[in-house]
Amino acid sequence: MNDDLATVGERAALARIIPRLGAADALLGPGDDAALLAAPDGRVLISTDAMVEGPDFRRAWSTPFELGWKATATNLADVAAMGGRPTGLVVSLAAPGDTPVRELEAVADGMAAACSALAPGVGVVGGDLTRASVLSLSVTVTGSLDGRAPVLRSGARPGDVVAYLGRLGFAAAALRLLFAVGEEDAAAIADLKRTRSGLLAEQLAPRPPIRDGVRAAEAGATAMLDVSDGLVLDASRIAAASGAVLDLSGDVLDQLAAAVVAVSDPEGLAAPPARLGRHEALGLVLGGGEDHGLLATFRGEAPEGFLPLGIVRAGAAAVRIDGLEVDPTGWDSFTAP
Amino acid sequence: MNDDLATVGERAALARIIPRLGAADALLGPGDDAALLAAPDGRVLISTDAMVEGPDFRRAWSTPFELGWKATATNLADVAAMGGRPTGLVVSLAAPGDTPVRELEAVADGMAAACSALAPGVGVVGGDLTRASVLSLSVTVTGSLDGRAPVLRSGARPGDVVAYLGRLGFAAAALRLLFAVGEEDAAAIADLKRTRSGLLAEQLAPRPPIRDGVRAAEAGATAMLDVSDGLVLDASRIAAASGAVLDLSGDVLDQLAAAVVAVSDPEGLAAPPARLGRHEALGLVLGGGEDHGLLATFRGEAPEGFLPLGIVRAGAAAVRIDGLEVDPTGWDSFTAP
Repeated sequence: MNDDLATVGERAALARIIPRLGAADALLGPGDDAALLAAPDGRVLISTDAMVEGPDFRRAWSTPFELGWKATATNLADVAAMGGRPTGLVVSLAAPGDTPVRELEAVADGMAAACSALAPGVGVVGGDLTRASVLSLSVTVTGSLDGRAPVLRSGARPGDVVAYLGRLGFAAAALRLLFAVGEEDAAAIADLKRTRSGLLAEQLAPRPPIRDGVRAAEAGATAMLDVSDGLVLDASRIAAASGAVLDLSGDVLDQLAAAVVAVSDPEGLAAPPARLGRHEALGLVLGGGEDHGLLATFRGEAPEGFLPLGIVRAGAAAVRIDGLEVDPTGWDSFTAP
Repeated sequence: MNDDLATVGERAALARIIPRLGAADALLGPGDDAALLAAPDGRVLISTDAMVEGPDFRRAWSTPFELGWKATATNLADVAAMGGRPTGLVVSLAAPGDTPVRELEAVADGMAAACSALAPGVGVVGGDLTRASVLSLSVTVTGSLDGRAPVLRSGARPGDVVAYLGRLGFAAAALRLLFAVGEEDAAAIADLKRTRSGLLAEQLAPRPPIRDGVRAAEAGATAMLDVSDGLVLDASRIAAASGAVLDLSGDVLDQLAAAVVAVSDPEGLAAPPARLGRHEALGLVLGGGEDHGLLATFRGEAPEGFLPLGIVRAGAAAVRIDGLEVDPTGWDSFTAP
């Protein structure tokens, strides 16, 4: 029997998808006009982010499970970046009529798995399924500050340490390998995903440091965001909001670039890209995007796990490397080639 | 100068769109990784709903302002249907690169205007803009119960009055006129929208009874939902969740059908559809969908403005008209022609 959405229908498809989501800690889960979540301190954090087939992902590279995982993980990171604890998710799925329902079940499984791994107790409490010419997932996440002040982008002050927790440039390095192999040769893609599983996961199923957002807030982070559009562009956002200079260490950035070169070794690949140069690797560290680690500033020492990247200085908003101003560059889904 | 998204870019476009949204009552509005909303009783209602060009709307019929209005109004209705007060919205917009930014500004204006009209103080507190082959809006709404219990679908009990607040079949009657005029003749569409502005607004820019959700809850509604997929199908959801029969009055439904016939008079239209028969009009009342009024059950008398439609009876879950069971029918975006 045909398993596609147009045959199964929206309601029967939802009846198969929803039970896989696990509303966990919700006061009221899916099935009514709205879900109900606890907001223990009388406030709720909320953020939304969409992934659309084409600009944001390719079906040839990402499994439905990975899509669900990534959409969940990147949204959870937005709550973490405020110093918050995620409390729930809702998702709008749009898909072509010929999409097998089992693929949407796999999307749901990926969402549930990412919640279990990164934010146990959190689940998808509501959703919507509609027809569209391409697959897209629009996820909204809620969170609790549990009485703390939110960690804004505007709190960085001269003398603060600039620090980062997570990988930089790895997601972009993985994307570079995927572009080298292309979308046509399924066996070559499978081989790449098998032999470079760790690196590829940085792009296809990332694990942002969700719990560390609260830890950073408790350690006194003065400003924080998750790096999604590239280190320099996102650093420039803290600089602009705070009215200060973020001065990064060229030595530290060079070490990060060396790590990207090391994981990008094309040895043994069926469709190897050109060997990555140090300069190009630095470009991925500075502007590759989709890193989803936490960039934060701290009055004193950065907490364990955060890598000191530089220092906040007085001056007109800017990002510098060893004192030299750099242009904010980063990903723009509309102007990108 | 070209005003399209691909030329202007995501960030510059957002810088033009966000100021039009008016975060109003938010503790923290757009501009950081997440927004912060009040949740005064320590709980938050949340619901999400998407509109995609093609299955959900046609650009030939809906202006961008109307799209923003409708996506907002229909989401607000989901909070109202729980007996809640809306507190905020986030939106994921996806649009082709050749979309003029002024059209997205108009979408934002429509969202802000719907909030002002239907839920003053509420605004769009966050969003996301991404590239896609067609325009879509995915809106998530939050709400507060202000200490009350949510009004679920499961609370209807034998002897309760079934009542409805809003129009039934008008949105579907408007859609019938739009299908008759088609998508090609812009002058005829404009003429239709001018000469039938009230009826067309029921489909293109509806005004669901948002404030009445709280009023119904305070009046002791035992079950409630907003009718989006057709009266019978949505009534069957209350019946199923409550384990009871919703028995509707054929006389009342006939009167509602007569009202649909009256507003559907094709006299003077450039592209008139066939004159609507009473039987077809009853079909629009029972299964037309997109009505977005409130269907509720009450232990005693229905509060002012609610039209009594029938009574809840003991028995296996079903919807009946004058005691005769009817099949739940309604809109399914995947199996619809």
